Amino acid sequence: MPVKHFEPQAGMNVLHSNLLTFSLAMFKLRRSTQLLIRCHSTTSTKNASIGQRQQLFMVDEASPGSVFFLPHGTRIFNKLVQFMKVQQARYGFQEVISPLIYKKALWETSGHWDKYKEDMFKVEGFENNDCDGNHTYGLKPMNCPGHCVIFNSTLRSYQDLPVRMSDWSSLHRNEASGGLTGLTRVRRFHQDDGHIFCTRQQVGEEIAKSLRLVKLVYGVFGMDNYRMTFSSRPDEHIGSEQEWDEAEHQLTSVLDEVVGKENWNTRDKDGAFYGPKIDILLKDNFGKEHQIGTIQLDFQLPARFGLKYKGEDGELHQPVMIHRAVFGSVERFLALLIDHFDGKWPFWLSPRHAVVIPVNETHKEYAQKVAASISGELLEALDAPAILESHRFNVDVDNRSDTVGLKTREAIVKGYNYIIIVGDKEAEAGKVAMRSRDNRKIELLSPDEVRNMYIKLEESFE
Amino acid sequence: MPVKHFEPQAGMNVLHSNLLTFSLAMFKLRRSTQLLIRCHSTTSTKNASIGQRQQLFMVDEASPGSVFFLPHGTRIFNKLVQFMKVQQARYGFQEVISPLIYKKALWETSGHWDKYKEDMFKVEGFENNDCDGNHTYGLKPMNCPGHCVIFNSTLRSYQDLPVRMSDWSSLHRNEASGGLTGLTRVRRFHQDDGHIFCTRQQVGEEIAKSLRLVKLVYGVFGMDNYRMTFSSRPDEHIGSEQEWDEAEHQLTSVLDEVVGKENWNTRDKDGAFYGPKIDILLKDNFGKEHQIGTIQLDFQLPARFGLKYKGEDGELHQPVMIHRAVFGSVERFLALLIDHFDGKWPFWLSPRHAVVIPVNETHKEYAQKVAASISGELLEALDAPAILESHRFNVDVDNRSDTVGLKTREAIVKGYNYIIIVGDKEAEAGKVAMRSRDNRKIELLSPDEVRNMYIKLEESFE
Repeated sequence: MPVKHFEPQAGMNVLHSNLLTFSLAMFKLRRSTQLLIRCHSTTSTKNASIGQRQQLFMVDEASPGSVFFLPHGTRIFNKLVQFMKVQQARYGFQEVISPLIYKKALWETSGHWDKYKEDMFKVEGFENNDCDGNHTYGLKPMNCPGHCVIFNSTLRSYQDLPVRMSDWSSLHRNEASGGLTGLTRVRRFHQDDGHIFCTRQQVGEEIAKSLRLVKLVYGVFGMDNYRMTFSSRPDEHIGSEQEWDEAEHQLTSVLDEVVGKENWNTRDKDGAFYGPKIDILLKDNFGKEHQIGTIQLDFQLPARFGLKYKGEDGELHQPVMIHRAVFGSVERFLALLIDHFDGKWPFWLSPRHAVVIPVNETHKEYAQKVAASISGELLEALDAPAILESHRFNVDVDNRSDTVGLKTREAIVKGYNYIIIVGDKEAEAGKVAMRSRDNRKIELLSPDEVRNMYIKLEESFE
Repeated sequence: MPVKHFEPQAGMNVLHSNLLTFSLAMFKLRRSTQLLIRCHSTTSTKNASIGQRQQLFMVDEASPGSVFFLPHGTRIFNKLVQFMKVQQARYGFQEVISPLIYKKALWETSGHWDKYKEDMFKVEGFENNDCDGNHTYGLKPMNCPGHCVIFNSTLRSYQDLPVRMSDWSSLHRNEASGGLTGLTRVRRFHQDDGHIFCTRQQVGEEIAKSLRLVKLVYGVFGMDNYRMTFSSRPDEHIGSEQEWDEAEHQLTSVLDEVVGKENWNTRDKDGAFYGPKIDILLKDNFGKEHQIGTIQLDFQLPARFGLKYKGEDGELHQPVMIHRAVFGSVERFLALLIDHFDGKWPFWLSPRHAVVIPVNETHKEYAQKVAASISGELLEALDAPAILESHRFNVDVDNRSDTVGLKTREAIVKGYNYIIIVGDKEAEAGKVAMRSRDNRKIELLSPDEVRNMYIKLEESFE
């Protein structure tokens, strides 16, 4: 049985396939096994501990399954989003912001009303006398139907294709409350969601680009413990055999070309009934596999929404839709990163770059000056607006009246990448004494030297 | 009668006061007058026309009152958010990401359940047998209750105060569908929302800082057509007379100090019953006033949520809460910007910085190279990740087979700040011929010169 049936949250990045391939029976099964699975979920135990120690996120009974990202967790979250936005832009993705609630009619068109309602939240006014269902909304579990509405809002020409939309909306799925925990089993989450609308001829190149982006991204995080699977047509499927032959051939030859013949395997007949797909499975430090990225062809949604573009022949044609995500759910990816780095964030992703510790009371002012200089704040006068593009680092000053030794140990526990100590000697020389989180060796540097070093670390994703 | 009663969407930036100062009767009145008001809403007519011409946003019956931001509208939206994030960070705000749905119990604590339910959306599972209301959620209309939950999650010391949280969550209010239009009357919107938790002694300084930020921000947009109002205690209010005396004195002396005695006026007894407030009203090009920013003191919510911090005396004290927003609703602010700039975006905020037009077929390759070089893409090899901090400009190439004259006119209609033409002469010299949107004068420049000029324009917010 495919791993995903025991991995409900993996379904989050399966985007559309969740909707139609999981049978109702499987949902029931999956729910009843969630509690059992939770006990084995070592990643989430570790997550909770690091998440608490580093004050990254919290949960509260006021909203089970929705994570509160605390300031330091939000920094990591935002950095992941920023990172992916600049990568995606080079791959031709254009970001959109689409609504969170849609009327019943849209979900009927998309097929969610029929097949996925049980996993969705219903939205209504409190004083609702809704006889025709026209005031009933569904809180979106995925972005695809909204993107079809945008595609359809204007007549596209073949010259406009591929149209590539990205979206960072909040998504909600009504997971059973028994299985909710930390970052990995949630009701509210965010995807690095992208939909490509293209001609059938463009499918191969778009898939190849998506795979290249996947490899590039996982490489930056040093995550090489993943494998790719190709899922072929199931017995029940829509579309002609010729269309499937063509689509399957495109996917498999692209896999051969981009990741190499030996680096992917087939899940026979495991595709969605609307198209074949590629999934990326990452193994965590405990040897457990998690589905993260996904690339799925879809002949179905374009038909349901009646999507058309004007071809070179002047006729209207139906585009192919590709659902793809690289991180998958940002929350889940973050959980895997916590596990992967064991809470020791690489500099560029770190929510705590450095802490400046004054040796005593008299060095507080100098400590403040040093922190501002390294973080980049001193570069900007306070009565003028801060400029948009500038390297800004998370540098704190620990002004509490404890010893330097105690503060250093605490800084290491909290995960600061660098500890900067300033006393008489440093203040007189206009320098700082800096050590890294992982090495006791102390270097004497000027604040400018520190800042330039930090810029290099960030630019090289170290 | 205060203008806000005829300005339901202004209520969006009133944050909390909407909740408790508007009586039910006023809501009914306001709803019945919305259609009438819409006919006079010249800003929204202009908005719709520029929004469509520049492909900034759209609406669809699938989600009335929720704006779809198209790629170019999303660029402006994101730039506004990025701009405010870097300004706020210098003022000590820490961003959090908080849930969108909360259980009934939270809304009962906050008072929304009692006073504001009619304007909220209810969220439930589709298969809900909710006898105790424990599976009924409210979709948040404002961020304050969630921030109280975060404040309460750990014991804060007086040394941790002020705690300043910012949040960019989607907010939903169940406005009557009759009045929904464009960006100004919406059900889903975003605020540059901030809550400051501080001691009573810190209130004055925090208000002063908030006012300085308001002045700084409106200055960058060249919006000087605003006035500030101070609203004093209403007859019915909570808290002692001494507390009110102190709070009102703090607000008025800060107003005198930061904006000057002659630049604000008083709305007598128009404060919320939980605290006095300052509102900022901006006049649009049609002379109509819109409420945008707001700064509100709140003694009430900290009491309802039992918020405490440990004082210097070792005792537990209740913090004061300040609700503040500078843009107010980003959607509404964007509408005012469209009006203010008449669609002619300043360079730094523009979704279309430049278009490169090749004179004929043979110049297409050079046009592509020029565009990449100016936008910043060529600086990065495609097999390496794009660096995070870099100036990136929105530069398109118009490869259609129309005349240069026609393409130039279209580019001006679409709002490109610069039109760059490349033919034989330019390609041979490694230069480009550039003119601005507003001036026919053509300059011959190298791509590097153009890029450096753009960087300067962005950094000086021109």
